[in-house]
Amino acid sequence: MLVVQKYGGSSVATPEHIRRVARRVVEYRRQGHQVVVVVSAMGDTTDELIALMNKVSDNPPEREVDMLLSTGEQVSIALLAMAISRLEEDVISLTGSQAGIITDNVHTKARIIKVNTERIVRELSAGKIVVVAGFQGVNDANDITTLGRGGSDTTAVALAAALKADLCEIYTDVDGVYTADPRLVPDARKLPTVSYDEMLEMAHLGAAVLHYRAVECAKLHGVTLHVRSSFNRNPGTIVKEADEVEKSIIVTGVTHDLNIAKVALFDVYDRPGIAWKIFHALAVENINVDMIIQSAMRDGLNDIAFTICKSDLKKTLAVLENIREQVGATGYTYDENVAKVSIVGSGIATNAGVAAMMFEALARENINLEMIATSEIKISCIIKAHEVSRAVRALHRKFIVPGEDICMVSA
Amino acid sequence: MLVVQKYGGSSVATPEHIRRVARRVVEYRRQGHQVVVVVSAMGDTTDELIALMNKVSDNPPEREVDMLLSTGEQVSIALLAMAISRLEEDVISLTGSQAGIITDNVHTKARIIKVNTERIVRELSAGKIVVVAGFQGVNDANDITTLGRGGSDTTAVALAAALKADLCEIYTDVDGVYTADPRLVPDARKLPTVSYDEMLEMAHLGAAVLHYRAVECAKLHGVTLHVRSSFNRNPGTIVKEADEVEKSIIVTGVTHDLNIAKVALFDVYDRPGIAWKIFHALAVENINVDMIIQSAMRDGLNDIAFTICKSDLKKTLAVLENIREQVGATGYTYDENVAKVSIVGSGIATNAGVAAMMFEALARENINLEMIATSEIKISCIIKAHEVSRAVRALHRKFIVPGEDICMVSA
Repeated sequence: MLVVQKYGGSSVATPEHIRRVARRVVEYRRQGHQVVVVVSAMGDTTDELIALMNKVSDNPPEREVDMLLSTGEQVSIALLAMAISRLEEDVISLTGSQAGIITDNVHTKARIIKVNTERIVRELSAGKIVVVAGFQGVNDANDITTLGRGGSDTTAVALAAALKADLCEIYTDVDGVYTADPRLVPDARKLPTVSYDEMLEMAHLGAAVLHYRAVECAKLHGVTLHVRSSFNRNPGTIVKEADEVEKSIIVTGVTHDLNIAKVALFDVYDRPGIAWKIFHALAVENINVDMIIQSAMRDGLNDIAFTICKSDLKKTLAVLENIREQVGATGYTYDENVAKVSIVGSGIATNAGVAAMMFEALARENINLEMIATSEIKISCIIKAHEVSRAVRALHRKFIVPGEDICMVSA
Repeated sequence: MLVVQKYGGSSVATPEHIRRVARRVVEYRRQGHQVVVVVSAMGDTTDELIALMNKVSDNPPEREVDMLLSTGEQVSIALLAMAISRLEEDVISLTGSQAGIITDNVHTKARIIKVNTERIVRELSAGKIVVVAGFQGVNDANDITTLGRGGSDTTAVALAAALKADLCEIYTDVDGVYTADPRLVPDARKLPTVSYDEMLEMAHLGAAVLHYRAVECAKLHGVTLHVRSSFNRNPGTIVKEADEVEKSIIVTGVTHDLNIAKVALFDVYDRPGIAWKIFHALAVENINVDMIIQSAMRDGLNDIAFTICKSDLKKTLAVLENIREQVGATGYTYDENVAKVSIVGSGIATNAGVAAMMFEALARENINLEMIATSEIKISCIIKAHEVSRAVRALHRKFIVPGEDICMVSA
């Protein structure tokens, strides 16, 4: 069997952690499997590098950010290969570039466009455990790129797909995917299985356990994921194609995301092409916009509000400053103290009244809804950041906790 | 003018240091020069990585050591490029691999065999300052290699030679090349010029300011070096082809090296091919042997002693353990508490009695000589490590201090 295992930053936080991961990898190898291991940077390494960077420049070129941050994973792969070698297994570490992870040119959030597996296949055939740096790749100019948040998950899934691996295990510091964040909701339950689509919404909405791009990639290539803890042997959560049976559950989980900011433009022209102008200008700068709300306030003028990743706020405001006159905006505002809470489940689309139940649960907690967005399998609300714990607990009580009949109504 | 500047670890030790180097580089660029900058890892980074490594494995594969250590320079180049960009000059950082530094396969002490300058030339032509990671390259298997101690000097000189640069400036934390280590000898003087051969001996003998491989490479390609401080504007020491005039000075400098160990094999067969067996076995393991002494003790049996770099001691002892029976040795011993003191000067070969003067100066200090080696332009003695300061001061008094006639006798 060919297994791709991915170990996150908390699983390789210290030399002791790395030695434990090495033992786990070698154990697999000795069961006769071929093993490709993807690792993230050790614990706080990336944050430390960013702190160093901030002391040198407040606006570094993104190519150089990637040059800097990619060293974090390079340290991890070298140390893990050393730890595995010490257990007397043949092993080789490969940077993203050496592993053939080819990306586009969008520094700091590149997308994998191809995996040249030649070198990995050759090393596996030579009987080696192959340790690959997550989060990084190389573009066609031979420059190092990074994949952005959660990039190591994507590396693992892309390798599993390209190598036609039998399984892709995502090791993390939690036991699997929960119905809500257990730190906020003590009686949150671990899900034994979850569909790609549900995981996609949950990942997209801030369930930190697995990055949405990785789930997208897994869905596209039919890679079965096993999300589990590197600190114990418990079975985790299997992510795979949805069964019909599972649709009987309306709401699979409650998620939240504090890493967002809300931006609003006032009084833009109510004219075709205005929204295109705004969101094209943002797309050119590689700013991902999440929720968008447009509301007609007076004749011929609109307010447009949208949410973005907090780290894109500075770039976003610069874009707005550039285009505000073109779109006729009288001003703009932003708010970083917001959060998104969502309910996710395959049954939402087929169950009328789920949205109303969600709004009721939040209203009973006296929580104001600033924006609302829905899809086939999720409903999201933007609320004040300090209300997020209360909101998540209320929604979990409403939809998930066993015994409350509403949440188990079948489609 | 095309200038290659190399900044050592102490010159880029902190973000503040990096910003200062950036200002200096930009100043050069704005004078209209093309600038290629080679940097080492920040201050103690390499030591920190080694400490981390030691917590994971006591015997790491050397390929993985290179994978690990090369991250140090990668951090430096990214940060320096950011600092230069902040001063609004176009800049790009390149790893050794991206810069086309092609080496052999000897991990941890690779030699540069070729420089593919295509990418650097392209970036220079585009008006960019090019920042290159010192100390590292890539072999023909696309694996990262490192050049060993002082490797960044070699990178700078190799680039200067390949790019046909007009000048190669080596920035360090001292003002230039001194007649002895100023920390040991307060009245040591800075040399305005020194020949390649003298610098070669001094570098080889432990004058930490410039690595001998870099000097070899500079001599081979006729690259003029300027060794100077990154902390002030003082002119430093120019290293170039010897003038006839300079030969009038017998002794140019006094050097010392504490980074050595002495090893001795007892009672090896006195037979042709025995020395070859021993030193071939060491060469296969890439252990550089420095001084060698063979002494016939009894009929048919020899003692062989030699010195090596301290860091090679463990490997050396392993080799001896393997070959001791083949060469008939009854045992071996080693001593890490030794040092080498040397006098260097173009005039040594042509002046009889210089060796005797050296031995006299050391004898008057009651310092015992364990081994002696001489060349055209140097004389070295192995002594106990704790006597090194006294020895260097005595030799500097004897040969260098102005006013003592002996040192100024012309050839």
